[in-house]
Amino acid sequence: MDLHGAFHVYDTTLRDGAQQEGLNLSVADKLSIARQLDDLGVGYIEGGWPGANPKDTEFFRRATQELSLRNARLAAFGATRRAGVKAADDPLVAALRDSGASVVTLVAKSHDRHVELALRTTLEENLAMVRDTVTHLREEGQTVFLDAEHFFDGYRANRDYALEVLRTAYDAGAEVIALCDTNGGMLPGWVAEVVHDVRETAQVRVGIHCHNDTGCAVANTLAAVDAGATHVQGTINGYGERTGNADLVAVVANLELKLDKQVLPQGLLGEATRIAHAVAEVTNFPPASRQPYVGASAFTHKAGLHASAIKVDPDLYQHMDPAGVGNDMRLLVSDMAGRASIELKGRELGFDLSGDRELVTRITDRVKELESRGYTFEAADASFELLLIEEVEGQRPTYFDVESWRVITDSRPGDDAVSEATVKLTADGVRYVQTGEGNGPVNALDHALRQAIEQAYPEVAKLELIDYKVRILDQGHGTDATTRVLIETSDGESSWITVGVGANVIEASWGALVDGVTFGLRRHEG
Amino acid sequence: MDLHGAFHVYDTTLRDGAQQEGLNLSVADKLSIARQLDDLGVGYIEGGWPGANPKDTEFFRRATQELSLRNARLAAFGATRRAGVKAADDPLVAALRDSGASVVTLVAKSHDRHVELALRTTLEENLAMVRDTVTHLREEGQTVFLDAEHFFDGYRANRDYALEVLRTAYDAGAEVIALCDTNGGMLPGWVAEVVHDVRETAQVRVGIHCHNDTGCAVANTLAAVDAGATHVQGTINGYGERTGNADLVAVVANLELKLDKQVLPQGLLGEATRIAHAVAEVTNFPPASRQPYVGASAFTHKAGLHASAIKVDPDLYQHMDPAGVGNDMRLLVSDMAGRASIELKGRELGFDLSGDRELVTRITDRVKELESRGYTFEAADASFELLLIEEVEGQRPTYFDVESWRVITDSRPGDDAVSEATVKLTADGVRYVQTGEGNGPVNALDHALRQAIEQAYPEVAKLELIDYKVRILDQGHGTDATTRVLIETSDGESSWITVGVGANVIEASWGALVDGVTFGLRRHEG
Repeated sequence: MDLHGAFHVYDTTLRDGAQQEGLNLSVADKLSIARQLDDLGVGYIEGGWPGANPKDTEFFRRATQELSLRNARLAAFGATRRAGVKAADDPLVAALRDSGASVVTLVAKSHDRHVELALRTTLEENLAMVRDTVTHLREEGQTVFLDAEHFFDGYRANRDYALEVLRTAYDAGAEVIALCDTNGGMLPGWVAEVVHDVRETAQVRVGIHCHNDTGCAVANTLAAVDAGATHVQGTINGYGERTGNADLVAVVANLELKLDKQVLPQGLLGEATRIAHAVAEVTNFPPASRQPYVGASAFTHKAGLHASAIKVDPDLYQHMDPAGVGNDMRLLVSDMAGRASIELKGRELGFDLSGDRELVTRITDRVKELESRGYTFEAADASFELLLIEEVEGQRPTYFDVESWRVITDSRPGDDAVSEATVKLTADGVRYVQTGEGNGPVNALDHALRQAIEQAYPEVAKLELIDYKVRILDQGHGTDATTRVLIETSDGESSWITVGVGANVIEASWGALVDGVTFGLRRHEG
Repeated sequence: MDLHGAFHVYDTTLRDGAQQEGLNLSVADKLSIARQLDDLGVGYIEGGWPGANPKDTEFFRRATQELSLRNARLAAFGATRRAGVKAADDPLVAALRDSGASVVTLVAKSHDRHVELALRTTLEENLAMVRDTVTHLREEGQTVFLDAEHFFDGYRANRDYALEVLRTAYDAGAEVIALCDTNGGMLPGWVAEVVHDVRETAQVRVGIHCHNDTGCAVANTLAAVDAGATHVQGTINGYGERTGNADLVAVVANLELKLDKQVLPQGLLGEATRIAHAVAEVTNFPPASRQPYVGASAFTHKAGLHASAIKVDPDLYQHMDPAGVGNDMRLLVSDMAGRASIELKGRELGFDLSGDRELVTRITDRVKELESRGYTFEAADASFELLLIEEVEGQRPTYFDVESWRVITDSRPGDDAVSEATVKLTADGVRYVQTGEGNGPVNALDHALRQAIEQAYPEVAKLELIDYKVRILDQGHGTDATTRVLIETSDGESSWITVGVGANVIEASWGALVDGVTFGLRRHEG
């Protein structure tokens, strides 16, 4: 029994995390995420429920062949044998045994009411199910962990029975008993009391598995560790059913950076931001910008006073150096920003504005005026940079003169609709009339624009529109509404964001598109 | 000194919350949110920083005239007098005094390093700034609270000085000393220790103000209350700088529902979900679906096993009855859903499918097939209901036959672009060719479609497209991408969501639009 080995960081993104509303992972997605989790250095990756979920059976099959994990062991999740059936005869238990995973984590009911109402069997039979399944898997050479489902509620309802479920599991050879707050209703103080009690008698490693229904999943997990748990479960970006599971990165960052407990291999915490965002690319669920440690806004400062202090020392308004988790400090330009923010932002973009008070004032005023009309520069660094250039050099960079544009989308019976844009402009003294096609109006305009100026500027061929966000700004309702569009353009190596505003969404998009291409051309000039 | 009165629930959405990246509130927005906060029953609404922020000066002017608050008192936030200036001569202090607010909350540095580096003054002068400003405002008849900025960091750096700042404030007449974890780096156990220590000597009400940088803002707040704090600060939906402030609804729900502490007027917690979403409408930041208590997913169940248990008793997988915070239980239909989920979802929508196993199987198979092509029914209840009707009745409701549609957006020099859609269809035996205008292609198609069928179905006049979400489903990259569109339609009384999928975004939108109108017409039939 490994009580002296490394602390267990156990990731269940691919199993419990996948139960989040809207989350749909293919087998390829899961393999990709598993590689990211291994890069982070977690000790265990719970890959799914083979046998019960065909996608998961396939995942384990491919994982054992295709994944070369450097840090993590694969765990297969599943239930104890069915009531009245022998463990060796239960096909779902066989699927766990044969999954190829290093560890099997069995979920068992530890709340008497669940045994009676959900499983519809007796308390004795439930203990036998635990005993038999753990014993069987151990005899087959498997390492077994226990997930004690509904443990905290079960402990409150019937402490003796809940503890007996645990005892039955570890007497049969389970190496970890993970106490699960399945319904998420616990608070930290209560978790600590229960974990202390369990630790009095448990002869084995105690784990903790929390959900965020009271907004305390991370704190509950830390409280359990404080009370002696040495195995923490959670998910990347807090994915999970209902309010989600404990955010594993926040738990680990707190353990390492606040409580001086090294739980990941040396240096890997610095990869956390990159990995959290990489996983989010796969799940298609962008991490919340306010997410602790790794969110885009986690170290972003808006208030003018904060920016002034940060000019002196970033530590004045940051609880840690963002590099510790691979994140960055960002300063926002907004109507809350003062001159200090504009100067710092300018410096971030490579402009030294400190000598010219009048220039900084002019820029600050223009930003506030544009923002009152719906523009936002908080997310659109490239648009802000074009504004800076305009103020510093006296005019905005211009590479072409637009005469007009038009875009049509036509339905075609029995086939996909076609979007077609025609742009008329003059570049380098030559007039172009160019039509481009696309899978939507903005996509078609992007193609038409770039094809139109390609002769004059061949470098636009490598530009690509990679993201597009629309927000209706409700200055009232209905016809008064203004639209704001953010467009992300990439040249294959880096990407930048530009903003467009207008009453018509396509017009607003056109504005952001022109800025995006202009910025790309300016950058190419060096 | 009001140590025996009601617990203080102090909302700073309009001041600290407004420091969130991307959040921009007009004065009208702030007044609207203030009314919502009053409906929730908070005791204090911190409206902003009058004098320093012109929008806030205006807010307080209009608030004192236009708001009839039933539950809350307005608080004005601001700084102690500037170093070397008399309180009575400081214009920012005057702005606080004259704001019309019932309470002034003064922020003061309680961390010696901040006094020296950020304020650039002496430790003594900082104490005088606190003493003079509090004294001056009290002499003018103001109630004064203190926000001890950076308190926990300051306490660790120089405990004596931090405590002296507090003492100076309450000796001068401050009624509350709110300890602020401004940089957000604290953990619950540490907060408890510090609050205990402060409570040993403080003769006045102790408050707590936390940020979520370690993912523990709610837990830190509860730890402070456990240690004797009787004034909690936070924001709706956890808005705020960086990772945000403590989510005030989660704090209050935990206090009332878990710790049996009534802190809002009787019954108002049940309005929490409605109010959290109403405030989000104004800020244009939808609450995270996973947000504790009030998120759309907070009581949403996806796993088939969970649904089976919930069929027996919802309490088996929920830590409380969602009605307590005004939320609802939802069951998802997805490829994780089993037959039990489909049955329960059908029942939720008014269909009794329990007698027909073959029907349920057919529906489950169709859902999985459509989802593999990019459809999602998790958010699109109306599309799912149309599918149910199609399977139950043998055919999908059809009110018109579409021949073709086309939409053009034209730029106009010196004016806004115009979007124009032409739809050709037959309704009730009559062929219509109708052109509609809009502020974008989908808006124009919506108008053209409804105008085309209005003669046959006059009830479509009250339908309105109120929300529109696009997601590119990355089945590869570039031209293979499929687009999924979710459209929310309202008839003025309720609203519903439909989904459309296609290679062309306008085509996908058209699909969702047709479903949205069809659903509205079906519902109108009764």
